[in-house]
Amino acid sequence: MTSLVHETDRSTLNAVLSAAANAAAPFADTAPTVRARALRVVADVLDAAVDELVELAVAETSLTRLRLSGEVARTTGQLRMFAAGLEEGSWFDAIIDTADPQATPVPRPDLRRGQVGIGPVLVFAAGNFPFAFSVAGGDMASALAAGCPVVLKAHPGHPRTSERTAVLVAEALADAGLPPGSFALIQGQQAGVDVLRDPRISAATFTGSLQGGRALFDIATSREVPIPFFAEMGSLNPVFVTPGAVAARGQEIAESYVGSFTLGVGQFCTKPGLIFLPKGHGLTDALIEAMSGVAAGRMLFDRIHTGHQHVRDTLLGHSGIEVLVQGDVDEGKVAATLLATDVPTLLAARESLLTECFGPTSIIVEYDCDDEAVQGAAAFTGNLTGTIHAESDDEALSGRLLNALRDRVGRLVWNGWPTGVAVCWAMQHGGPYPATTAPEHTSVGMTAMRRFLRPISYQNLPQQLLPESLRDRNVLGIPRRVNGRITTEDVSW
Amino acid sequence: MTSLVHETDRSTLNAVLSAAANAAAPFADTAPTVRARALRVVADVLDAAVDELVELAVAETSLTRLRLSGEVARTTGQLRMFAAGLEEGSWFDAIIDTADPQATPVPRPDLRRGQVGIGPVLVFAAGNFPFAFSVAGGDMASALAAGCPVVLKAHPGHPRTSERTAVLVAEALADAGLPPGSFALIQGQQAGVDVLRDPRISAATFTGSLQGGRALFDIATSREVPIPFFAEMGSLNPVFVTPGAVAARGQEIAESYVGSFTLGVGQFCTKPGLIFLPKGHGLTDALIEAMSGVAAGRMLFDRIHTGHQHVRDTLLGHSGIEVLVQGDVDEGKVAATLLATDVPTLLAARESLLTECFGPTSIIVEYDCDDEAVQGAAAFTGNLTGTIHAESDDEALSGRLLNALRDRVGRLVWNGWPTGVAVCWAMQHGGPYPATTAPEHTSVGMTAMRRFLRPISYQNLPQQLLPESLRDRNVLGIPRRVNGRITTEDVSW
Repeated sequence: MTSLVHETDRSTLNAVLSAAANAAAPFADTAPTVRARALRVVADVLDAAVDELVELAVAETSLTRLRLSGEVARTTGQLRMFAAGLEEGSWFDAIIDTADPQATPVPRPDLRRGQVGIGPVLVFAAGNFPFAFSVAGGDMASALAAGCPVVLKAHPGHPRTSERTAVLVAEALADAGLPPGSFALIQGQQAGVDVLRDPRISAATFTGSLQGGRALFDIATSREVPIPFFAEMGSLNPVFVTPGAVAARGQEIAESYVGSFTLGVGQFCTKPGLIFLPKGHGLTDALIEAMSGVAAGRMLFDRIHTGHQHVRDTLLGHSGIEVLVQGDVDEGKVAATLLATDVPTLLAARESLLTECFGPTSIIVEYDCDDEAVQGAAAFTGNLTGTIHAESDDEALSGRLLNALRDRVGRLVWNGWPTGVAVCWAMQHGGPYPATTAPEHTSVGMTAMRRFLRPISYQNLPQQLLPESLRDRNVLGIPRRVNGRITTEDVSW
Repeated sequence: MTSLVHETDRSTLNAVLSAAANAAAPFADTAPTVRARALRVVADVLDAAVDELVELAVAETSLTRLRLSGEVARTTGQLRMFAAGLEEGSWFDAIIDTADPQATPVPRPDLRRGQVGIGPVLVFAAGNFPFAFSVAGGDMASALAAGCPVVLKAHPGHPRTSERTAVLVAEALADAGLPPGSFALIQGQQAGVDVLRDPRISAATFTGSLQGGRALFDIATSREVPIPFFAEMGSLNPVFVTPGAVAARGQEIAESYVGSFTLGVGQFCTKPGLIFLPKGHGLTDALIEAMSGVAAGRMLFDRIHTGHQHVRDTLLGHSGIEVLVQGDVDEGKVAATLLATDVPTLLAARESLLTECFGPTSIIVEYDCDDEAVQGAAAFTGNLTGTIHAESDDEALSGRLLNALRDRVGRLVWNGWPTGVAVCWAMQHGGPYPATTAPEHTSVGMTAMRRFLRPISYQNLPQQLLPESLRDRNVLGIPRRVNGRITTEDVSW
């Protein structure tokens, strides 16, 4: 495969960075309503261009039209969610403590706290979502919403899609009146690293492999001025099924599990990599049967294809691993693989068996008793998700599993599947390391904005010099914490 | 000075870390009301022991009884603030998005998001606040409030005060029913580094010098599992005075500025290190006169004393620096030093002149015109605070200064002084690097808790397995975002 990437040259990078640095203050100063309008203009432009964009992505990624057009809809939905959130106003986390001359041990001045954009953000686009985690994707949308210029490093897997999207976005942002320099696309691995090292960048995001994410994190944190680096990396997304759930709906679980781990040729960060079933579950035939209905699929890029085959081959040859279905490669299409083992084998070989296999491969892990199931859950480090299938007669086990997973994941799924990440306020798409480098944040959902906001307090400022959101009169009608009470009312005296 | 520190030995450290790791899950599971009660018990115990604690600190630190007893009051006030905040409940940031089968592009499951303690926190105590930033200080109080076990590395400057406070705190926490291992004190520099490297620690805080903070940050971020490291380090806290303010109240500004930078022998992180005055300000006599009223004082420790003298001597001998008052050392007591220069000199020698001089030394910087004042403001990197003294006839200049400082500080002070950090919801005590390593957080005020909380989403969980705070019935009466609206009502169907 010939690379279509034209590495952005140094003088262009320098111009991009200067423009982003110059845009930072005016962009941070734009009214939230202006940024909301800009995000909606971008969404409208992308929706209007959906056919053209999908064709480009089909040519570059091997994803289907159906999937890609759905992804464009998700992307524009995200942009509109941030627009609506900007107008609603609680992202600003306005806190007003009026002066209290009686406060002890010392009188308290008038203090008002809000948020300001952290500065230019470098976004490393993901390979597996050419729209929703790429140009105009969640990272970029949340950074723009926060008032931060974005330098987007395109993923090499879909350069033409990225470039065309970038042209549309840049035009839309200019039309909407955002400052020049608010957005630029760059291409090339070295270009990305060079920009990450540049002092004009204030934060960065990444979605991809543990190896790549950690290398960039190390660069970001060892700079003369270290910056926040939000990497979303590998995840195994374990699933636990209790005996009661097997009895009540084993067949359905077998079918939908196979559907979940093979969805999109297994190329989702929330793909379930292991499913824990009680010994004697009797679902093996149902699982093999379900596998037979899954079509082989082409993986996104050579590198992902090769990576999957490599990890899969290691698992196939691992002692204590039984091969239920060995999916082979035919004309570049990868069929799904299903393996089986038990908890003692897993615990004895955590390092090799608890390695993400990005693609359509998953492992059934049999447990002998409740204790073994819980030991299995406790063997995991940080993950994006943990899933439990249980019925009400399994409360002892499911409660213990819930506790074990609670400390290891960002999202707990009950009687469902981790694939499918809803874009809403309550979503947490993140988790302890190595799922991410920033367990306190999410890369999906409204609160993803918080990665790019920095609090600032104003002490005794005159009304007219305060940001509009912090003045006595709440002209924007946003929720504010005024002397301890959340209200949309004016500050009264 | 003979060290009173007994370095905690390795086997004790291991026991402390195991106990903290074991306490993490049960502590995170304690009801917020239980933690609130525990914090109040600690506050009551410390208030009752104030005389004894102050005597110990007087012997170890050279701070006055008045200052130290005020600091104990601030410390117990902080503990009670976190207790009240835990009960109020918005720290939990509860977000409930009920299922939406009509959502596009895909139906939305029931998603409910809350916060959970990040795990055991290592707190490096500060030297300049033997109570408020030490054992039972803000870092520890906010970590305990978040439900995180605390390992507190005592500052070598006040080991006996630390040990006695720790005994009282440990007893109080046990009485209040917190799990064993929720708190332990350790001593010694190597012990602190060893614990920071230990995988059982999930986050760490530090208050002190840039050099020390950066070295520890580098350790924390280069671990196999990197952890959030919240260091509050050096700050210059520039002050800008407009011509109008000089005309209206120059004498008062001169006096209170001297009061602010010499308060506590200049040993506050918010001490104003530089004040910008318009050329021809005519306040030199008033400043020198105010300096004559300031008594020399003993600094906290030898290392701080030596450090201050070293940086001061470099400034004294710097070309372009005029010495207005050279404070000498007499019987170990340090008199205040006042220097003067102008903006061009400052800009030409940023590296050496924009170095924190921790102690009673400050520099007057004269500016020629508005542009020079703004250039001066733009010369700073990250600071905790920036201060402007202005009158309404200076709006052009003060607006420009405000914009320049906004991107460089965590708190903007108007017609006041940065020393004196109110402990309340709206406080932001933090700022861009090198003021801190985490500009998105504060180490003072209610939101300091957020450093130790990690979001978690629950998808389709049955009511009885959800945390109480996320169930349909809002029995705790806390504010929650339910389908986009902040409310204390139950979820209705």
